Amino acid sequence: MKILLFFLVTLLATCHGNVQNHEHESNFNIFPLRMKTGPGGKYIPEVSCASWRVAVEARNIINWKTVPQECEEYVGNYMLGDQYRADSKFVNREGFFYARTLNLKDGRDLWVFDIDETTLSNLPYYATHGFGVNPYNETLFNAWVDEGAAPALPETQKLYNKLVNLGVKIAFLTGRPLKQKDITAKNLKEAGYHTYEKLILKDTELYHGKTAVQYKSSERKKLEEEGWRIIGNSGDQWSDILGTNTGERTFKLPDPLYYIA
Amino acid sequence: MKILLFFLVTLLATCHGNVQNHEHESNFNIFPLRMKTGPGGKYIPEVSCASWRVAVEARNIINWKTVPQECEEYVGNYMLGDQYRADSKFVNREGFFYARTLNLKDGRDLWVFDIDETTLSNLPYYATHGFGVNPYNETLFNAWVDEGAAPALPETQKLYNKLVNLGVKIAFLTGRPLKQKDITAKNLKEAGYHTYEKLILKDTELYHGKTAVQYKSSERKKLEEEGWRIIGNSGDQWSDILGTNTGERTFKLPDPLYYIA
Repeated sequence: MKILLFFLVTLLATCHGNVQNHEHESNFNIFPLRMKTGPGGKYIPEVSCASWRVAVEARNIINWKTVPQECEEYVGNYMLGDQYRADSKFVNREGFFYARTLNLKDGRDLWVFDIDETTLSNLPYYATHGFGVNPYNETLFNAWVDEGAAPALPETQKLYNKLVNLGVKIAFLTGRPLKQKDITAKNLKEAGYHTYEKLILKDTELYHGKTAVQYKSSERKKLEEEGWRIIGNSGDQWSDILGTNTGERTFKLPDPLYYIA
Repeated sequence: MKILLFFLVTLLATCHGNVQNHEHESNFNIFPLRMKTGPGGKYIPEVSCASWRVAVEARNIINWKTVPQECEEYVGNYMLGDQYRADSKFVNREGFFYARTLNLKDGRDLWVFDIDETTLSNLPYYATHGFGVNPYNETLFNAWVDEGAAPALPETQKLYNKLVNLGVKIAFLTGRPLKQKDITAKNLKEAGYHTYEKLILKDTELYHGKTAVQYKSSERKKLEEEGWRIIGNSGDQWSDILGTNTGERTFKLPDPLYYIA
């Protein structure tokens, strides 16, 4: 609190000075403290990589290929520490706060969940493959998926359980290819996702050359045409929750590991 | 790095154990460290308020009225410290990285900037009014705006200057009411925003009962009907960058102080 008060006093002193002189100054200084980053400043990964991560979450940085090299340790610490779980908890809790306000009746209310980094975690894979710094390796990643050993994301699982108890129906909609349907179903079940209406994987022939936004929008449209009402939609990628038929509310789970357009 | 390696080893040991037993376990433990937040855990503001802030930035928490009481000090430290500026810098820099790739020619390329917390900062006001914890007070806030003393946000100003140099035209589109047009123009000029094509304030009669999304979409539509191409759109609120005619790319600047629907 003392530190905050010191900042405040410094800030107000600075602003006061500026107001007095603002006829002569074109640029006010609202940041009295020296920036620790940027040209001429020392690079502080905790500050800069945190900015990178938030810019990814808020969809300011798009179409990125890999995590910046200098943020590998930051991302690793984030993913393995408290903050990733706390962030996941907040988003899922908000989903529950929303769902419990709804008036559900006829059993046609659907929540769409993505799978990777939404309901199942590939952290055991990414932890041994550079936390997103290494370029995506389809062969290695598919070998990991084919083990069917991805753990549940516990905070999403809590939301899932609460939704099932409320009577909300569940659909999984994933970019995983159709050929991984059996192992994915097995993995979901063993991780604790027992109950769902739909498990939709990507028909890679039908959607050849299409983006994730196009594929997922098209599949959600089919769901709505079948009479489902998408009341919620959770994903770790913006491509899970943008496009058409996105659902009444969308929830963006944290993912600083990779980007899917 | 040692700490990260310790986490890694712990994680892998945990995952390995789980894989061995996953026929009997429905819930894998991918978070070997005890959570510091949540039911039964000690509340750690740095973790929980950081989650709240990121959830706001990623539009997971919407329609909130005030900053959670317990996050006042966190938000104050954030706004007055390095992270707010670093976050602002990242977003604006990304805007420039995008703008410089464009092929500009006929002088009809427009960048739309919101004003409050986008080009001008009301931090001197919020720093003395509870950093968003206190409910919005129209009288006090308008008195502050009418001083015309809001400083420029320096990282947005850098983007603005670079855009002007590139030949991009500028429009300001703000929720401030029309009656504040003169003081806003004066404040913008004195803060260093000398050059722009449009300064659009809200006609509160015309847009009575309309949301910010409706008002701003409608005004952007008019701009496009006049022949402007909105190549970029920067705001601190999601209501600045959602709706129709949002522009080729949008940029969400950080703002944990207030929410406008």
